[in-house]
Amino acid sequence: MTQTDVTVGVDIGGTNTMFGFIDATGRELGGGQFATYSDDPPEQLIRRLADAIKKAFMSLEDDNCRLVGIGIGAPNANFHNGTVEHPPNFDWEVVDVVSLMRRHFDLPVLITNDANAAALGEMRYGGAKGMKHFVQITLGTGLGSGLVVDGNVVFGHDGFAGEMGHLTVDPKSDRRCGCGKYGCLETWASATGVARTARKLLAERTEDSQLRLVPPEDISSKDVFLAAEKGDPLALEVFAITGEVLGIKLADAVMILSPEAFFFFGGLARAGELLLAPTRRAMEANLLPIFRGKVRLEVSQLQDRNVAVLGAAALMQSMLPDLPQP
Amino acid sequence: MTQTDVTVGVDIGGTNTMFGFIDATGRELGGGQFATYSDDPPEQLIRRLADAIKKAFMSLEDDNCRLVGIGIGAPNANFHNGTVEHPPNFDWEVVDVVSLMRRHFDLPVLITNDANAAALGEMRYGGAKGMKHFVQITLGTGLGSGLVVDGNVVFGHDGFAGEMGHLTVDPKSDRRCGCGKYGCLETWASATGVARTARKLLAERTEDSQLRLVPPEDISSKDVFLAAEKGDPLALEVFAITGEVLGIKLADAVMILSPEAFFFFGGLARAGELLLAPTRRAMEANLLPIFRGKVRLEVSQLQDRNVAVLGAAALMQSMLPDLPQP
Repeated sequence: MTQTDVTVGVDIGGTNTMFGFIDATGRELGGGQFATYSDDPPEQLIRRLADAIKKAFMSLEDDNCRLVGIGIGAPNANFHNGTVEHPPNFDWEVVDVVSLMRRHFDLPVLITNDANAAALGEMRYGGAKGMKHFVQITLGTGLGSGLVVDGNVVFGHDGFAGEMGHLTVDPKSDRRCGCGKYGCLETWASATGVARTARKLLAERTEDSQLRLVPPEDISSKDVFLAAEKGDPLALEVFAITGEVLGIKLADAVMILSPEAFFFFGGLARAGELLLAPTRRAMEANLLPIFRGKVRLEVSQLQDRNVAVLGAAALMQSMLPDLPQP
Repeated sequence: MTQTDVTVGVDIGGTNTMFGFIDATGRELGGGQFATYSDDPPEQLIRRLADAIKKAFMSLEDDNCRLVGIGIGAPNANFHNGTVEHPPNFDWEVVDVVSLMRRHFDLPVLITNDANAAALGEMRYGGAKGMKHFVQITLGTGLGSGLVVDGNVVFGHDGFAGEMGHLTVDPKSDRRCGCGKYGCLETWASATGVARTARKLLAERTEDSQLRLVPPEDISSKDVFLAAEKGDPLALEVFAITGEVLGIKLADAVMILSPEAFFFFGGLARAGELLLAPTRRAMEANLLPIFRGKVRLEVSQLQDRNVAVLGAAALMQSMLPDLPQP
């Protein structure tokens, strides 16, 4: 009987930590999740994680599995150093997560940020199969990005490349970003950005909109999406503005990297063409002619799967020479 | 007596075509140049180039040289296809320059655009020695850029990556770019952009400036530089505006690529800190905090050498496995 090589994919989030056992074909054989308690000391979180992984592994149905490595996605993770550095929503300074994990497992361990992990997942198991140049954009509370050049994730000099959420749309804007700057891309192009734009339009305009039925402070990007789907003009304008801002910055990224495609993932990506159509128009209008009509904008093919865990496993899998590579 | 392996570096420009014989240490053993006549059929230009190379090679002082390859830098060159495609200032459509050269030489031939060639030259022989992540910016009539990620030039999906001159500063600007778009970076950050900003300030303001001694249509970036060096406030403001615009877009590039340094080459780079100081300030102000204070802005160390020829040779040299690699 042959053994099944299994990689653990881990997604450490500010609220929940998830993990899954992923085989070479991308099948998830099992897994688990628990509350992160991000104000706990990191040693405790990693011990709880290790215990949970070991316990879940023991109870896998297929009892012929062999753990071959662990891939971790975490905010502000540094691939080069194996560290997580000043992650937002955590009480951590610089934590050597890879070393902490290796206290519990005699296995190769790699870490990267969640956006890079998503890109690796898309490349191994999603729409970017076989692509050498693409960008993965996560549209959640903020905007995360993972860049692939020549088939490899770009980590950059310091391991932190790919922070497209903080590209400057307008330095004179009054939209303050969580990072302290003003006018960052993610203050428009994210779930919170869409809600912000909706509140702004509702405050400035007098026209009717079904969004007026929601208290302004409670408006979510989902409310805007549902209204836009029904043809609400103000909600449609919110997506038009979001797409205009996003498209101009995607055009900049195209002129720098010349990718084959952008894949969109996360809550706001569920808006699909409502968001992507105006984004595509603005991108095309701002491209050097030589790039026009060449770059695809698509919703991630892993949108309904556990991409964070899958991508973290793919990070490790891409480094394991014995595994069949796609 | 051992042979000296020599690579030909060729720079095809709209006005002049230059070439040089470069050894493995970057020494130029000889070379030549002639008028391009860019309205000639490409076959004729390449035949003239091949004849000139052969003739110059015969007359090299060191008669123990062996040609091992040819690297070419040219506008709108496509590394993947070996072609030059619709180059500005030429009457060419898509020309397979590599095949044309190989009619005359039984040697490996590679081509890339001039900005990528400059980056390869900087990496092999200039300030970027040993760097894995940097950006080379050429500030001439336009703004060219060559990006290095993980030690390799980024060509992108279609071979045209690295067109930072056309990043959008302001799509609503009335600055029309040669590419047909409005508000491209190079309409500010280039020799012509600096002259344009100077003319605009001179027209809008009434204050005295030594630039008023030059007829507006004749103002060059050199005039602005000479005036700024003498402390002319209006000329200094032109550099402040140029640096502000350039710095914001460099910050975007840092957040995408996280390079170790930017190297500046070309006529306008001679302005040195007059340009780089305000550029650095604007870049730092627009960076995500995690990137601040990490990225160097420097004038190219090859500024006074024949970087186009040296870089084209370096393109070929980087692909020759028998050559000692830096």
